[in-house]
Amino acid sequence: MSENRHDWLNDRWVIFAPLRSDRPDEFAARVQEPSTSHRCPFCIGREHETPPAILTLNTSGVKGRSRRWQVRVVPNRYPALQAGEARSSSNDEAYEQVALPSSFDSYTSTSLKTSVAIDVMKRRPVYGAHEVIIESPQHVERLTDLTEEESLLVFEAYRERLICLRADDRLAHAVVFKNVGAEAGASLSHSHSQLIATDFVPSDVARTCQRLVESYEQHEQHFFEQVIDHELHNGERIVFESRHFVAYTPFASIVPYFVCVVPKTRESRFEDLDDERLVEFNGFARILLQALEKILPKTAYNYILQTCPFDGGWDQVFHWRWELFPRLTKAAGFEWGTMCFINPVLPEHAASQLRRAIEEIQG
Amino acid sequence: MSENRHDWLNDRWVIFAPLRSDRPDEFAARVQEPSTSHRCPFCIGREHETPPAILTLNTSGVKGRSRRWQVRVVPNRYPALQAGEARSSSNDEAYEQVALPSSFDSYTSTSLKTSVAIDVMKRRPVYGAHEVIIESPQHVERLTDLTEEESLLVFEAYRERLICLRADDRLAHAVVFKNVGAEAGASLSHSHSQLIATDFVPSDVARTCQRLVESYEQHEQHFFEQVIDHELHNGERIVFESRHFVAYTPFASIVPYFVCVVPKTRESRFEDLDDERLVEFNGFARILLQALEKILPKTAYNYILQTCPFDGGWDQVFHWRWELFPRLTKAAGFEWGTMCFINPVLPEHAASQLRRAIEEIQG
Repeated sequence: MSENRHDWLNDRWVIFAPLRSDRPDEFAARVQEPSTSHRCPFCIGREHETPPAILTLNTSGVKGRSRRWQVRVVPNRYPALQAGEARSSSNDEAYEQVALPSSFDSYTSTSLKTSVAIDVMKRRPVYGAHEVIIESPQHVERLTDLTEEESLLVFEAYRERLICLRADDRLAHAVVFKNVGAEAGASLSHSHSQLIATDFVPSDVARTCQRLVESYEQHEQHFFEQVIDHELHNGERIVFESRHFVAYTPFASIVPYFVCVVPKTRESRFEDLDDERLVEFNGFARILLQALEKILPKTAYNYILQTCPFDGGWDQVFHWRWELFPRLTKAAGFEWGTMCFINPVLPEHAASQLRRAIEEIQG
Repeated sequence: MSENRHDWLNDRWVIFAPLRSDRPDEFAARVQEPSTSHRCPFCIGREHETPPAILTLNTSGVKGRSRRWQVRVVPNRYPALQAGEARSSSNDEAYEQVALPSSFDSYTSTSLKTSVAIDVMKRRPVYGAHEVIIESPQHVERLTDLTEEESLLVFEAYRERLICLRADDRLAHAVVFKNVGAEAGASLSHSHSQLIATDFVPSDVARTCQRLVESYEQHEQHFFEQVIDHELHNGERIVFESRHFVAYTPFASIVPYFVCVVPKTRESRFEDLDDERLVEFNGFARILLQALEKILPKTAYNYILQTCPFDGGWDQVFHWRWELFPRLTKAAGFEWGTMCFINPVLPEHAASQLRRAIEEIQG
């Protein structure tokens, strides 16, 4: 029987339909392999094929623009947003590049009842940053192919760049994410992450923040703390725990094997993690990725680092989190038409499989 | 330069980034062909592989359950929702199948500030219908492979089933959609559509309806009428027009070549179309599909028929619409993390290409 579960934070119902996964699929299970003839622009020796580095890190922990690098952050050559590298101080020249051209027209209805016109065709130039975090000079395809020391540099790079972009007054929000495999939206197979910072807070993020405020006002407890209390007490959706972090499969996960990692005590920003906890988080994330890859070998996945928007004043309610989800199901007409998702795998089942995989890994 | 456009109805910003489409793609442009060895359960002679028909239509227009059929509607064998075929009168036996089992627990925080507790783990059994509209007894893969008379039966079947499901008091919402190609979420290549009806209105649909109310209260004009007025006056996003319908590429389209078709004068329900306008709509939809297939041969696509929810009292504001969109871009980490979309093709450009394709088709 199908069950409906409410994702309170996003205010959406998810339909759990275990029977769905039995259906035949003429197109099934062919992993799209990258074309091997492609010259990879992220490999060592091809640095000239990407814009100059914003940041490089190497295993001895020394930052700089030296030629020797382990992690290299560059502006995306095909950016979703422009203005090059965001700067920590206001830069009038860069800002002028995105000033409103006179050809931009704004449409406002002429038949207004009140003075508050709804502008149905609002447009604006957008300022932001789109960066690529190249995770290794070698052509590795998975973060888990790196040593623990090497992958730590990747998370260090996230922290470093978020701190730097947050200092740019024009930016309002940033998200770090990773697309692994064609099904997850990757266009290159060389292990990399991306960061997109925008001069506005995306509406859905703002709505979610507003719900966090609402939840706190109702319960005098923060939303994720309330959820974690329940999950730790109940246990069936807990995947893994360390001193400061906990991983669970959310009650109303929109896709199979969705995993959410949060600090046990609320912290608003990933980029405020100290070195010790960054090391702990690196180990934690590695284990989860290994477990996912063990259960679902070669499956495409995404992860997203949700940290507090720079603007909006949500520091007192935000709880940063790392969301990991394989791309097993495809959003089709129903999902796009309603934003109501159909998930064929119960999160309790997913958590139990992930726990078993972690036990085996830790042997 | 990137431009930000606001989709007022869904309250989300879309980033238009024309440079994005130039980026290299190691995984590019391989159309996933269906496995030919697969025995198709939708072909004539294999009716026993699907549940018994709910409705069959043939080209002479006669409804019935006869063996001869051109369009055949069956319950989905792997349903997202159950309770079999929805019935037009309340049916206690069917309803009991989805009654709340005693093992369902509901979690409510014990530390409430007010009496209005937020239930963060709300769950319920879900009642609904999930039907498949098989569009031909022959193994055709595109609606446009059918004759005009044959495809009319497909839209007739939508109308018929929507009318029938709307009569079921337990149902609150229904959406008809079509997934063509693996990238669009199809698991079988035989031309078919689907219908999902639920006993709740999906939150995003309800939010959109609420925005329609708000827009009307502000402007004393309905949202889509206001948009169409502007689009027809401006012209650059208009794709096609007939006596009663207009197709345009929305100002803040979330994906490239997104096309929206609406009746020029507001009507809340597709299923209330009379025969004459159903014929007009069939011809209209066929031309758009042909144009899309001409510009983007073999590209996967979805279409969605958004008709007024059965519940909620939105008949006075809803404007039914048919949304068509190819699956050229993939929602990746950024999009899933923010619900903010990056579209590399401006709708003005898409409309101009589609207009040219239609001119060529119409010779």
